[in-house]
Amino acid sequence: MSFFLKAKRLDFSTGDVPVAVLNEDDAQSFGIRPGDRIELKWKNKSSVLNVDTSQKMVKKGIIGLFEEATDLTKIRSGEVVYFEIFDPPTSIKAIKKKLKGKSLSYHETYSIIRDLIKGHISDKELAFYVASSFTHEMKNKELYNLTKAMVDTGSKLNFKGRLVADKHCVGGLPGNRTTMIIVPIIASLDVDIPKTSSRAITSPAGTADTMEILAPVDLNLKEIKKVVNKYNGCIVWGGSTYIAPADDIIVKLTKKISLEPLSKMIVSVMAKKVAMGIDYLLIDIPYGLTAKLKSLKIAKKIARKFKWLGKKFGIKVVFTILSAKEPVGNGIGPALEARDVLRVLQRKEKRPVDLEKKSLHLAGKLLELCGRAKKNKGETLAKNALKTGRAWQKMKEIIKAQGGDPNIDSEDITVGASRARIFAKKEGKITSVDNRAIDEVARSLGAPHDKLAGLRLHKKLNQKVKKKDKLMTLYGRNKERLNLGKKALKRVDIFTIK
Amino acid sequence: MSFFLKAKRLDFSTGDVPVAVLNEDDAQSFGIRPGDRIELKWKNKSSVLNVDTSQKMVKKGIIGLFEEATDLTKIRSGEVVYFEIFDPPTSIKAIKKKLKGKSLSYHETYSIIRDLIKGHISDKELAFYVASSFTHEMKNKELYNLTKAMVDTGSKLNFKGRLVADKHCVGGLPGNRTTMIIVPIIASLDVDIPKTSSRAITSPAGTADTMEILAPVDLNLKEIKKVVNKYNGCIVWGGSTYIAPADDIIVKLTKKISLEPLSKMIVSVMAKKVAMGIDYLLIDIPYGLTAKLKSLKIAKKIARKFKWLGKKFGIKVVFTILSAKEPVGNGIGPALEARDVLRVLQRKEKRPVDLEKKSLHLAGKLLELCGRAKKNKGETLAKNALKTGRAWQKMKEIIKAQGGDPNIDSEDITVGASRARIFAKKEGKITSVDNRAIDEVARSLGAPHDKLAGLRLHKKLNQKVKKKDKLMTLYGRNKERLNLGKKALKRVDIFTIK
Repeated sequence: MSFFLKAKRLDFSTGDVPVAVLNEDDAQSFGIRPGDRIELKWKNKSSVLNVDTSQKMVKKGIIGLFEEATDLTKIRSGEVVYFEIFDPPTSIKAIKKKLKGKSLSYHETYSIIRDLIKGHISDKELAFYVASSFTHEMKNKELYNLTKAMVDTGSKLNFKGRLVADKHCVGGLPGNRTTMIIVPIIASLDVDIPKTSSRAITSPAGTADTMEILAPVDLNLKEIKKVVNKYNGCIVWGGSTYIAPADDIIVKLTKKISLEPLSKMIVSVMAKKVAMGIDYLLIDIPYGLTAKLKSLKIAKKIARKFKWLGKKFGIKVVFTILSAKEPVGNGIGPALEARDVLRVLQRKEKRPVDLEKKSLHLAGKLLELCGRAKKNKGETLAKNALKTGRAWQKMKEIIKAQGGDPNIDSEDITVGASRARIFAKKEGKITSVDNRAIDEVARSLGAPHDKLAGLRLHKKLNQKVKKKDKLMTLYGRNKERLNLGKKALKRVDIFTIK
Repeated sequence: MSFFLKAKRLDFSTGDVPVAVLNEDDAQSFGIRPGDRIELKWKNKSSVLNVDTSQKMVKKGIIGLFEEATDLTKIRSGEVVYFEIFDPPTSIKAIKKKLKGKSLSYHETYSIIRDLIKGHISDKELAFYVASSFTHEMKNKELYNLTKAMVDTGSKLNFKGRLVADKHCVGGLPGNRTTMIIVPIIASLDVDIPKTSSRAITSPAGTADTMEILAPVDLNLKEIKKVVNKYNGCIVWGGSTYIAPADDIIVKLTKKISLEPLSKMIVSVMAKKVAMGIDYLLIDIPYGLTAKLKSLKIAKKIARKFKWLGKKFGIKVVFTILSAKEPVGNGIGPALEARDVLRVLQRKEKRPVDLEKKSLHLAGKLLELCGRAKKNKGETLAKNALKTGRAWQKMKEIIKAQGGDPNIDSEDITVGASRARIFAKKEGKITSVDNRAIDEVARSLGAPHDKLAGLRLHKKLNQKVKKKDKLMTLYGRNKERLNLGKKALKRVDIFTIK
């Protein structure tokens, strides 16, 4: 059965799901109920849309299209379209199989991922798939199948025979913005490093959020290739590349309940790296009681899975597995982390020493892995690139190539934010720093959506503090937001002072 | 932070999620994005709504309310309301714990179920909870916790010291509409049997769908109590009783992907029975290769879980565990199944013998369980109630008490449907009947939403057929629907003829 209707754009937005609105009488005579899905067809094209109904605001014979639906279809008001009732795709059977705890074949996995990208799998069906796939531990074979399916359903990049390096941090540690220091160092030594980053999932800032302070990050594949071919490196958001696009859809969902299952994380990372044509990959795996990964044991287990997957796809992988007891750098939140990064690159006095040290260690390891430096000499090479200003020069080129202003200075970045200082209430020694509490406070201040929001920590682990010493500065858009941050500080303690 | 806005009713319906629409500029200045949730407050009341945004159709200072939102809040256009950004409830932490494969305490489970009923858990969060809870096998302790939480968050019924019997079928077998025969038999023997039934989840008809052909089924608790106090029995839909209301929300979700995990089923059934104050419960567990439960082993396992749970809640449970190789009765679909039931109660010649026999067996067992009949004499007692017309008389009372027309005759029910006969293409013996194929054909014909839709089987397992013998009759609203049924018959075989 199919039905002809005249399209009418409605300026409503759901933020996600593409919605079509049918008149209630029409819907009834078609046997459709709100919440059902239809396959809209026009000019040999088709899209699957969710149905809302309307008593009068959408008249009989009209199909209203919300913004997401017009974005998807480009249909104009007045165009005649027809539609069919959309039956759940056959891949739903595979999702149900997975829900019963069974393993899926490559073919089944591919069918799910393909239908997901086509928009044929509803958000609820996807939630079932994600929950059943990632809750319990995924087998290696399943990790491989899913990674491959994600790669095979998206675009791929290759750099014409040049060897390509990359780094990745599994995250879960506030600050730790090493990427934006490592990439210019590596690129300045004529090694290609086309870095795609994510936006924050469970943290107050992702590298993409932070880089966005300095330059646009939503480059497409062609633009990425152009920038990397000319300047060796880039720091962009992975979501506008159509590299493993299924991953972005899944991330959007898991973000909604701020949850990132470990096996999903492994698949996400490897799918992007395989599709980007990476040969050498350094993975930073911080662990600690209040980090994303709680123990050395889990960190090592994940490293093993990465290594196994890397081998299957021909990628050489090395790791840094370091205990993480406190943030790396002083700033938390996109603007404050960008300031830390520039302070290091620009060799400012106030630069965070820990961030610089860690970045050099990682850059060194990567240079050794890809044969650019002799064994144990990578760090020296990296340090030199930083000291001589080569890395900062390279970063300016990258900022400019991505469409930003290279004449930026670290101290310009946080101008305009409201601030509140937090002082010590007692004397003692800082015996622990709670990364999760930092996340919570930063998010309550508005990070990562509000780029200026966040906090600057003035103290480090094991330091002694006196009563009324400045512990941290909160940054927010306005006083109300600062108050939300202060409220959060009543619920959780960032520093334990004993 | 809170914001004041003027309400405006919009006549849009999502079928499920309550939606509020904010002007895009307002949303931006509040820091809200489409897809976020807000807590609307007015007159000391509050509701959580999903946010859509609009560029112009909803003006600044206005909050548009979709139908589900006005149904929930009863707010009128022009009323001033205010809202706060809704933070995910703390029970989300419990959902995440479950997602990691850990067991939940009663307190944690209760918090999820309570927030679910309040509308504080989004459909995606619920999908994660359901998928992680029911995918893998639930431990007994968890089954108990969840059942108890569902009971404790809804209404309860008691029948002032009278002993109360009930029967339940785990389903998965087409036809098998024994409830509507057993209830009047039991009730006619002065045993209380307040039967709440479900609508179809994965089948072409639930008992509630079928009973609805004869009388309204959406009675509230007060009405149920009144009917049962006067006539001993009722056959109503469980969804309008506020008995274990969380279950209905979960059913709605699992229905969307036509999936019913076994442990969810056990919890659903027991929660309703506990809250209804049932003392004696007969559970019908059909199993077979194409039934919901595939093997005797699984059937027995589920029986053990039911028994364990029953004991914990003080309910005496017995079972009939029978191999199910074909439907019980001849009709599939609400109207056709109702016709079968009436044919049995009205002692019509065309009545399905198998349905009558099974109903008597079950009724007899239940009469013995609750002490109304001596051992091995229950079936005789039941048969007598049917033969003498007492059961049909009782059914007429129940139909009338629920608001239906007691002067109905079995042969009036399917008048008005379009029909198509299906004939045998070859000679041979029917060696198997595929219950799943029956479901698929019946659903493609429009069951259960279209009550007239379905099929009547003219042959049974092991019967011999000649070429061109009538195998079945398809019933549908119109020719288009009949064609969909015929199409389905090209994909699947109901009868295997060898």
